[in-house]
Amino acid sequence: MNNITDIHYGPLPADSPYVKPFRFHYTQNGKQKSWDLLKVHDSVSIVIFNVTRKKLVFVKQFRPAVYHGIISGDGVEPGSIDMKKYPPELAVTMELCAGIIDKPISTIEIAREEVLEECGYDIPVERIEEIIRYRSGVGTSGAEQTLFYAEVTDEDKIASAGGGVDDEIIDVVEYDLEEARKLTDKGTVITSPPSFLFGLLWFLTNRAPKN
Amino acid sequence: MNNITDIHYGPLPADSPYVKPFRFHYTQNGKQKSWDLLKVHDSVSIVIFNVTRKKLVFVKQFRPAVYHGIISGDGVEPGSIDMKKYPPELAVTMELCAGIIDKPISTIEIAREEVLEECGYDIPVERIEEIIRYRSGVGTSGAEQTLFYAEVTDEDKIASAGGGVDDEIIDVVEYDLEEARKLTDKGTVITSPPSFLFGLLWFLTNRAPKN
Repeated sequence: MNNITDIHYGPLPADSPYVKPFRFHYTQNGKQKSWDLLKVHDSVSIVIFNVTRKKLVFVKQFRPAVYHGIISGDGVEPGSIDMKKYPPELAVTMELCAGIIDKPISTIEIAREEVLEECGYDIPVERIEEIIRYRSGVGTSGAEQTLFYAEVTDEDKIASAGGGVDDEIIDVVEYDLEEARKLTDKGTVITSPPSFLFGLLWFLTNRAPKN
Repeated sequence: MNNITDIHYGPLPADSPYVKPFRFHYTQNGKQKSWDLLKVHDSVSIVIFNVTRKKLVFVKQFRPAVYHGIISGDGVEPGSIDMKKYPPELAVTMELCAGIIDKPISTIEIAREEVLEECGYDIPVERIEEIIRYRSGVGTSGAEQTLFYAEVTDEDKIASAGGGVDDEIIDVVEYDLEEARKLTDKGTVITSPPSFLFGLLWFLTNRAPKN
């Protein structure tokens, strides 16, 4: 996954299909205000529990935005990145299986596709349970994310599937309950989004086997 | 809070101090790739529990990015917003007390200031506990967010403080434990970020009084 080289960056082209920045203007209690924001896609994420082996199924991938967040937090300029000091592994995240809603099918169908494409489990929508909807960001983007839960078995696994489609390079990893619980302990520093932490703790609270 | 009128939006100026979009280029396993992303500030958020009254302390505010997410999700054009159909109340979020790291003081000092400025409780940093660090976004921004926990009392409250500073308009709300727990139930649709849901469930799991 991590053979990553030749990192550089430049201005955002005006026709980016993924990031559409705006300045939003409004008047609140008579005072004119503005807020800079961007449009991103709504999305889904799925907590997957393999009941055959009592393991949670997560995904790991290199995330350019996290790499940029790390180096820019240290004040590194785009043209002078020391790849020894900042190896790409720093920006490999652990996440729930997830995907953006970029086609006209139902949200749960998008979830079903992502479970298959990213993690290789082929299950019908009837086995996917909608849990909670929230806003994936509130400061700069206000897209909706729907959290799902699915139980899978080893029999649902398609040997040739998983790891992403097109250019995606995604590693599937499994955690037992005790390992997973530790990720929510005080003192954790994790390269994961808060939706991962919430989905994990929601599962541990509401669905995990009790022994 | 919600006397909001005259909503419109336009292109992002190149000198926005809040949203800095880029196109990030890299080579992974020999294949050239790019990813559109933006730089946002690192931030803090604080779970606040008022032990005098056994209430969790949250904040509510109008969030332009959420408003934009709602109307653009429905395909509404910027110049023709029906404010009756889309009242600003739709985009009033419930969040943890939080703030961006935009000055050269320690992360916990930023947290202390936000607890005072947004919620009106004046407590020393010694009473603020760091819990977990994670990445507040992984798809389009990779900023770090640090979650803190603080217990406050009615005696810590400064009558004249809270509600935000400068142009901020922030309502402070209190939830008892049972009301708060319901927000994490299956079926919830909430105008809150996942960091709110995680912080809340972390508190309920690890710090809430047992009866």
